[in-house]
Amino acid sequence: MMSVFDDLMAFQRETEALAQISGRLGWDQETMMPRGAAEQRGEEMAALEGVLHARRTDLRLADWLDEAEPQDDEDAAQLRLIRRSYDRATKIPADLAQRLARVTSTAQGIWADARAADKVADFLPTLAEVIALKQQEAAALAQGGDLYDALMDDYEPGATAETTAAMFDRMRPRLVRLRAAVLEATAPPKLDHHFGENAQMRFARDLAARFGYDFTRGRLDLAVHPFSSGSGSDVRITTRVVETDPFNCFYSTIHEVGHACYELGIDPDYLLTPLGAGVSMGVHESQSRVYENQLGRSPAFTGWMFRQMIDRFGEFGVDSPEDFARIVNRVQPGFIRTEADEVHYNLHVMMRFDLERALIRGDLAVADLEAAWNDRFLADFGVAVDRPAHGMLQDVHWSVGLFGYFPTYTLGNVYAGCLHQALRRDLPDLDDQLSRGNLAPATGRLREKVQRHGGRYEPRDVIARATGAAPTEAPLLDYLDAKFGALYGL
Amino acid sequence: MMSVFDDLMAFQRETEALAQISGRLGWDQETMMPRGAAEQRGEEMAALEGVLHARRTDLRLADWLDEAEPQDDEDAAQLRLIRRSYDRATKIPADLAQRLARVTSTAQGIWADARAADKVADFLPTLAEVIALKQQEAAALAQGGDLYDALMDDYEPGATAETTAAMFDRMRPRLVRLRAAVLEATAPPKLDHHFGENAQMRFARDLAARFGYDFTRGRLDLAVHPFSSGSGSDVRITTRVVETDPFNCFYSTIHEVGHACYELGIDPDYLLTPLGAGVSMGVHESQSRVYENQLGRSPAFTGWMFRQMIDRFGEFGVDSPEDFARIVNRVQPGFIRTEADEVHYNLHVMMRFDLERALIRGDLAVADLEAAWNDRFLADFGVAVDRPAHGMLQDVHWSVGLFGYFPTYTLGNVYAGCLHQALRRDLPDLDDQLSRGNLAPATGRLREKVQRHGGRYEPRDVIARATGAAPTEAPLLDYLDAKFGALYGL
Repeated sequence: MMSVFDDLMAFQRETEALAQISGRLGWDQETMMPRGAAEQRGEEMAALEGVLHARRTDLRLADWLDEAEPQDDEDAAQLRLIRRSYDRATKIPADLAQRLARVTSTAQGIWADARAADKVADFLPTLAEVIALKQQEAAALAQGGDLYDALMDDYEPGATAETTAAMFDRMRPRLVRLRAAVLEATAPPKLDHHFGENAQMRFARDLAARFGYDFTRGRLDLAVHPFSSGSGSDVRITTRVVETDPFNCFYSTIHEVGHACYELGIDPDYLLTPLGAGVSMGVHESQSRVYENQLGRSPAFTGWMFRQMIDRFGEFGVDSPEDFARIVNRVQPGFIRTEADEVHYNLHVMMRFDLERALIRGDLAVADLEAAWNDRFLADFGVAVDRPAHGMLQDVHWSVGLFGYFPTYTLGNVYAGCLHQALRRDLPDLDDQLSRGNLAPATGRLREKVQRHGGRYEPRDVIARATGAAPTEAPLLDYLDAKFGALYGL
Repeated sequence: MMSVFDDLMAFQRETEALAQISGRLGWDQETMMPRGAAEQRGEEMAALEGVLHARRTDLRLADWLDEAEPQDDEDAAQLRLIRRSYDRATKIPADLAQRLARVTSTAQGIWADARAADKVADFLPTLAEVIALKQQEAAALAQGGDLYDALMDDYEPGATAETTAAMFDRMRPRLVRLRAAVLEATAPPKLDHHFGENAQMRFARDLAARFGYDFTRGRLDLAVHPFSSGSGSDVRITTRVVETDPFNCFYSTIHEVGHACYELGIDPDYLLTPLGAGVSMGVHESQSRVYENQLGRSPAFTGWMFRQMIDRFGEFGVDSPEDFARIVNRVQPGFIRTEADEVHYNLHVMMRFDLERALIRGDLAVADLEAAWNDRFLADFGVAVDRPAHGMLQDVHWSVGLFGYFPTYTLGNVYAGCLHQALRRDLPDLDDQLSRGNLAPATGRLREKVQRHGGRYEPRDVIARATGAAPTEAPLLDYLDAKFGALYGL
């Protein structure tokens, strides 16, 4: 006989399956969809969003949640996540959810066109519409509380703008100090070579496999903005190719592999259940960043990579593994967040965090955003934005309504710092393995300690369980000081 | 104020949008999906099928259909199609619909593996399951009537197995006679050249555009089995490449362009409504076949194509446009339906029709299918099937539950014969245009006479309106006798 819990989970399983479809359409939209299909796709996404919203607010859920009896802690965790989703969903009116889905779907195409044409004005009316809808959504969720917190909670349950801002305030001085010191030191040599697209993609595929990406349950394609999409047994990633800068492709790939491995590494028993997905964007980002930076950009691993690249691309004008490590870890003020080095990256995030909080609060008008962005960028990075595609049009996030998402990138870096500290403690021969291109000990341990749990534990708890201590920013900042101190002879 | 009709259409519009999503997942499954995702995809498709079935059987539809007042003939046609869909859907139990979706989704992967491994036994248990479910579906639909008619009605409303069999009986003697005469005549020279994949795909793209395919609302990819997918402003096609036989790629492409242009050519006012899709598989096939054969394989057009191919591929060992036309129109017994010439093609279809009728009636056991196929093939085509991939494993149809679909291919050829007769009458300079590679007058007329109407008229009516006469098999058979008589000097 089916218990109430079983009925609830059977219903939930179908909802999760439909949510996977929505994700797949998102992937399609950024990789495969013909441009002329954008408007129709908006209607399709809105219809599916309507179905999902109806299911997430289905009246039976309230009864099931009242009556279901968990048999163990896992059942209890499932119920907790279903209840959280139900509480959030019932606060958002169905017509608002559908309008958001429709507007953000078409906004993405408008953003891409505006970015290609470098025309901010083409994007502003749509962005204003997205923000107005997100403000309505936040107001419905916050019920008198902070609007930004309400949005952030969707990506990082338990985090608040206030504690995040406080942590950012603690981090900023050390990052600014490190940045100043590095920029005064001798810069690494310039890379001056042409790396063919096909050869880059071949190496990207090899790197993905080496970092544990399972191509029988995923695929790697090109897209404007690298991303990972899907849960369970269909987790797809994208990258991009710049022929003069192969590290853009390689490290975007490794980054997305980190995200994908998190999803692919979850206990298969959790497939198509609330536990069957990464628990938060911050924990997700911890995986992508530890793969990309603490492992992929470690001098031990770049030594292996240097030899590989000579084999694959021929001599490309870099003389030593030491210079190669410094080039891969080059620190310089740059316009693009996703291309930023580890020292600058969190400064980009802090800027987005402040701007989007102001937008959502209504303290910053959309018409003033470009000026606000450019002023802040000049102040923080010491260079003037030269074109909108390098400024406020660079990221897809706002077009698709992802407000409250940016700070999770830095939270992810903080968690990655903690996980890396634990890896170094638990795997004394880590550098030895990395120098032979062997990622398996490290990625295997992350899978065991973090990835397999999916949504089982709350974000800070999963990091604490994996490392033995509550997460703080100190390990990340210590790691950055030590690594860049050594690379730049500080 | 919204009328009942408006309410109904708003609901229907969302259903159509969700059905488009289902189609897009089908496309993804055959072009992009990683193999290891098949099982999860089965659950996703089943969940979406459950949503669609619930909407198609929604109790409000019965009331709306009773009360809606059409303002004009188009409204009436919308209501007629919604009523037909509702009547069909309410006859099929929801759990049967879901099981069919789940089984056919996984069956497709099993079929593809069995075909690649040439192992019939790997496919039979799944095929038996599909057939059992289709028999249940047919019984639910037929309510005492003929099972096969009930299935066929889904693809070609108004057609029956009996009238189809009678028409096939009238066609067969003339086809067999023509076939015998051609096979006794001198065969065209062999093509012996290697045509690179990339150059083939480039020419395929140019051909697609030339035949009117709008790449801003579609895309061309590789797949095992060429197909067209989608309606409205996102209609995607696939083709395949055989490096020794470029016509496989080129004519598969032109064929699918015919299907896609039908969907893309429909009056945009019908977008995401029941009228916004091709009215039947037979009429669909009439477009793909008239593009592929009556236009694309006409000696006038192949003269242009001959010069193009020399420009693109260099000399490839064919001396004259006359030999080229004979090569493109080579008649020979072959294993593969989709590669069959115009003389043999309908004989393939007639064989499938007889076999699948017997399977559905229960007169032929799945275990005996391979022998039945091979015996019949030897009798009809004079050659023994050499491997299952060339025999009963060649087509995707049965794995995805498409029983009753095959005869619509020959109905489509018959309609194409009628449409071609009318084109020749109405466009006296057609050959002149074709010989310059100009398809626009012909495809423009097909768009105006057939495509733009979508589901507005019943299948035989749309052909009758376009040609001025009820469709019969005579124009097709006359065209085949005349064309192959001239090419082979009969």
